[in-house]
Amino acid sequence: MQYGEKMHVPVTLRASGVVILNEGGDILLVRELGAPDQPAKAGLWHIPSGSVEEGENPQDTALREACEETGLRVRLVKFLNAYLGRFPDGVHILRTVWLAEPLPGQTPRPTFAHEVAEARYVSREEFAALYEAGQIRMSQTKLFCEDALREWTRLRVGSEAAGANA
Amino acid sequence: MQYGEKMHVPVTLRASGVVILNEGGDILLVRELGAPDQPAKAGLWHIPSGSVEEGENPQDTALREACEETGLRVRLVKFLNAYLGRFPDGVHILRTVWLAEPLPGQTPRPTFAHEVAEARYVSREEFAALYEAGQIRMSQTKLFCEDALREWTRLRVGSEAAGANA
Repeated sequence: MQYGEKMHVPVTLRASGVVILNEGGDILLVRELGAPDQPAKAGLWHIPSGSVEEGENPQDTALREACEETGLRVRLVKFLNAYLGRFPDGVHILRTVWLAEPLPGQTPRPTFAHEVAEARYVSREEFAALYEAGQIRMSQTKLFCEDALREWTRLRVGSEAAGANA
Repeated sequence: MQYGEKMHVPVTLRASGVVILNEGGDILLVRELGAPDQPAKAGLWHIPSGSVEEGENPQDTALREACEETGLRVRLVKFLNAYLGRFPDGVHILRTVWLAEPLPGQTPRPTFAHEVAEARYVSREEFAALYEAGQIRMSQTKLFCEDALREWTRLRVGSEAAGANA
């Protein structure tokens, strides 16, 4: 018996994003201006992310959105996860998120200044405060950042252990 | 307004897998023996894949499963997508799949011989015939392989163009 075709759930909305951390584990967030048709976004913080375009690979979307929203060329360090959301009308959205790090010698500066008001690193404490204050655009953003910090810590511990053995 | 917590859909089942292609674009499939409690799997072909373990990063799962089911150490070339499935009881399963290539100088040989009967490359024509005959374990496997072949072709065209310009 095959797992049948009925089991497959088509996903109509896809987005990709990156959690960019600096050396101290601060998180790079962007604050959206909010388009006239998307007033709900205005002024809220989120990770650099956006829609996967038709025919685009989600990994390429992540790199593109990082560049557009923060001006940074980044390296994808590790895939974190795919996070599922469902709108009240039943439409599924799937967000694929990577841990990323900027290539050296750059300063965050939004390229898409008509969409993004600001891009800056926030500490974990500030992130928690923004979340509590309802200033983070999506509740899932908290999951993205927690997963990123866990993976980032694991990678650092791994590389320190490798250094100690060298 | 935040996208609320209600929008998040928790995913209880996660799996990761790899589409491994050789130079000619043949697809590495494994044929499962099927455990006594999973007779539905017996004899069917699928890509190397398996469950994401507690606390495991899905990317690491993909590498682990490739090694266990084919004996190959592979490099993840590109993330393909996350594919959503839903069982009749409403449980969601999310499968993250990468295009991968074996590190040089290896021959496929299942390490987990108690789970996998055979691992070998099949041509696209043979894949289509197996699918038609109901010998591929999941209908989604067709999507995985189609997405992998598209990305593989795109990467080859890109690298040939780069070569021509060099």
